[in-house]
Amino acid sequence: MRQSQLFSKTRKDVSAEEQANNARLLLRAGFVDRTMAGVYTILPLGLRVRNKLEAVIREEMASIEAEELEMPALTPKHVWETTGRWEEMDDLYRFTSFYTQMELALGPTHEEIITPLAKQYITSYRDLPRYVYQIQDKYRDEKRAKSGLLRGREFSMKDLYSFHTSEEDLDRYYERVKEAYYRVYKRLNLESVTYLTYAPGGTFSKFSHEFQIINEVGEDTIYTCPHHQVAINAEIIDIQPSCPQCGETNLTEQNAIEVGNIFKLKTKFSKDFNLTFTDENGNTNPVMMGCFGIGVTRLLAAIVETFSDGEDSMYWPQEIAPFHVHLLHLSNDESSQEQAESVYSQLQNHGIEILFDNRKESPGKKFTDADLLGIPNRLIISPKSLENGGFELNGEIHTDINEIVTTLTKPVVSSSF
Amino acid sequence: MRQSQLFSKTRKDVSAEEQANNARLLLRAGFVDRTMAGVYTILPLGLRVRNKLEAVIREEMASIEAEELEMPALTPKHVWETTGRWEEMDDLYRFTSFYTQMELALGPTHEEIITPLAKQYITSYRDLPRYVYQIQDKYRDEKRAKSGLLRGREFSMKDLYSFHTSEEDLDRYYERVKEAYYRVYKRLNLESVTYLTYAPGGTFSKFSHEFQIINEVGEDTIYTCPHHQVAINAEIIDIQPSCPQCGETNLTEQNAIEVGNIFKLKTKFSKDFNLTFTDENGNTNPVMMGCFGIGVTRLLAAIVETFSDGEDSMYWPQEIAPFHVHLLHLSNDESSQEQAESVYSQLQNHGIEILFDNRKESPGKKFTDADLLGIPNRLIISPKSLENGGFELNGEIHTDINEIVTTLTKPVVSSSF
Repeated sequence: MRQSQLFSKTRKDVSAEEQANNARLLLRAGFVDRTMAGVYTILPLGLRVRNKLEAVIREEMASIEAEELEMPALTPKHVWETTGRWEEMDDLYRFTSFYTQMELALGPTHEEIITPLAKQYITSYRDLPRYVYQIQDKYRDEKRAKSGLLRGREFSMKDLYSFHTSEEDLDRYYERVKEAYYRVYKRLNLESVTYLTYAPGGTFSKFSHEFQIINEVGEDTIYTCPHHQVAINAEIIDIQPSCPQCGETNLTEQNAIEVGNIFKLKTKFSKDFNLTFTDENGNTNPVMMGCFGIGVTRLLAAIVETFSDGEDSMYWPQEIAPFHVHLLHLSNDESSQEQAESVYSQLQNHGIEILFDNRKESPGKKFTDADLLGIPNRLIISPKSLENGGFELNGEIHTDINEIVTTLTKPVVSSSF
Repeated sequence: MRQSQLFSKTRKDVSAEEQANNARLLLRAGFVDRTMAGVYTILPLGLRVRNKLEAVIREEMASIEAEELEMPALTPKHVWETTGRWEEMDDLYRFTSFYTQMELALGPTHEEIITPLAKQYITSYRDLPRYVYQIQDKYRDEKRAKSGLLRGREFSMKDLYSFHTSEEDLDRYYERVKEAYYRVYKRLNLESVTYLTYAPGGTFSKFSHEFQIINEVGEDTIYTCPHHQVAINAEIIDIQPSCPQCGETNLTEQNAIEVGNIFKLKTKFSKDFNLTFTDENGNTNPVMMGCFGIGVTRLLAAIVETFSDGEDSMYWPQEIAPFHVHLLHLSNDESSQEQAESVYSQLQNHGIEILFDNRKESPGKKFTDADLLGIPNRLIISPKSLENGGFELNGEIHTDINEIVTTLTKPVVSSSF
């Protein structure tokens, strides 16, 4: 992609619009635009990142045999009344159709849709287990939207729902999901800052688990163990904080961003909607359920908060970077321009995704913009690099374009932050 | 994919739920589930089709240099007031935030979002032309939802917006979009039933164009020319119906489904939002705009209406079929089961997408379900086929699995319906 043709441009100052650094950086870099408080347009650069992030999640969902579907955002009142959440959830966007007078809500979660839906297809133990997920936009009528994309009013979520004959089978799958989540965070270079956090379990379970990323801007408070990469959410107030793995009570209070949660629903929703199955002996039992979320938009914002360097630089993990390499041509003379064009097309022919800064801008402006955009590899062609024998990739001069291809197409070894 | 593990199953009778044949077939085949009137969950089989349909559209959008982005569904009242459409559009879902008392609408189209957004990035003739599109869920408070997925209350649309310095440049791009749309419909085998239809042009243009598919269930009335594949929408009542290409007045009245529309907005929205650019001479002018839609959900439903055979069979065009081949194993004996498993894994290794009906069901049930699902190639392994020397692909016996691979991986030549 030629940067001169990109729809978005970098912007200078957005501090009047946004308090949160994640939103400021993404706005300034042209990854998102702010439609209203807590609601964003994902611009082409941001969409490239989000699509890659979703691809990572989809691969890991496929690895645990989950099938993808897509539920609607519009949901009827009666399903929320069945579970008692129409009154209970105060951040539900509720409204009435002008024509039909039907009362509706925009879904902030989808247990109320998937459970009655599953009744169509699950009747016997032979139909179990089943695992379905979606990546879909969700809505919450937030009181204040002040954390940028970390807590929006419209945001993308991955939500997985599982259906089982027994609690043992649910427990087994719960562990498989946990491992899949670890693989997602590892692929995003978040391994060292991600804490498995014990959180309230609701009516039926002692605990649920959250995946929390340590970060000072996080809205959650967690207590981390010095010996294990686990933590306890401050919301669990009825127990003396101690590490669930080693009993250590000398824990550290830290701010964190919740980027995933796994939850045993057990029979709460299957009982509400009468989702049952017939077992081998002909007996009717309620289906056991689990639900497993990853906030996709929030994860994207958390990555910006984790890897940004001050207020002027982002840095994207290789797996989800909008482009593999940012090619900066730092001259207006024609011969080096020809060479830049040639390098651009040769690298593209090798399937390398390139953003080519071919704009008529000063080197200073190009470097500033490149820092802001945060593409992990930087390739410079300038009179100086050509004088030194070629092209400068991440600070090193290469004389041979094939060397550059080899370096850029090497399999990535995920490194921790 | 093993059919025994599929989340959905075929269903027998859904006539109490649905009037429209597209929705009945998609529900019965387990491609969608009905959440409420006009609102559907897209199940795994349906999502495979929709993803492939979107991929076709994305390829053709890339071929005309359009960049993808994603605008939100939540939109603030003030942008609709700026254009006068808050009062004008009676099918807008409108509501008020409980916490902020802000009035919102769910977007049924996005001129009100993209035009002010474009002001961030378009200020000079050097920034033009620009083309951006999204594939995104849209909302309409429909009076009656009776056409299944042809006219839903929540539905997926591709909407493209273009920005130009002049009407001539808009006209040039308009023709490029038209050609891209023809390519989309051709790839879906809809070429012979798609009519370029002259429709009202709004305030600023004489005509807009619609792409209409001839079908008796279509809600639009068009007049088709016997000499050219063009038509006039009955909404144009102020002219004597005659073919715009040859003047023929002996036209045929037909029902049709609108699956695309292209529209010159000219300066309507740029004037409302004061989207201007500075030209080469330093003068300020309003930006010329075009907008170009394809109803993705509607197109999927129109394909079902076009290619279904009565009430029991769908037939998917090769490009968007949920799987390339449906492998039916019609026996319970172990040796043929081993052969079926072996064929299944060999074909998968060649990258062929297979739905493997490994269920313990009668041959009759498997054939009935296969007819309903509409996968374009059918491969049968049964005692009879093995007796005849092998496997039956679309009615022909093959003794060599490599022959089957060759047949199935041959490049597709799109044939008209």
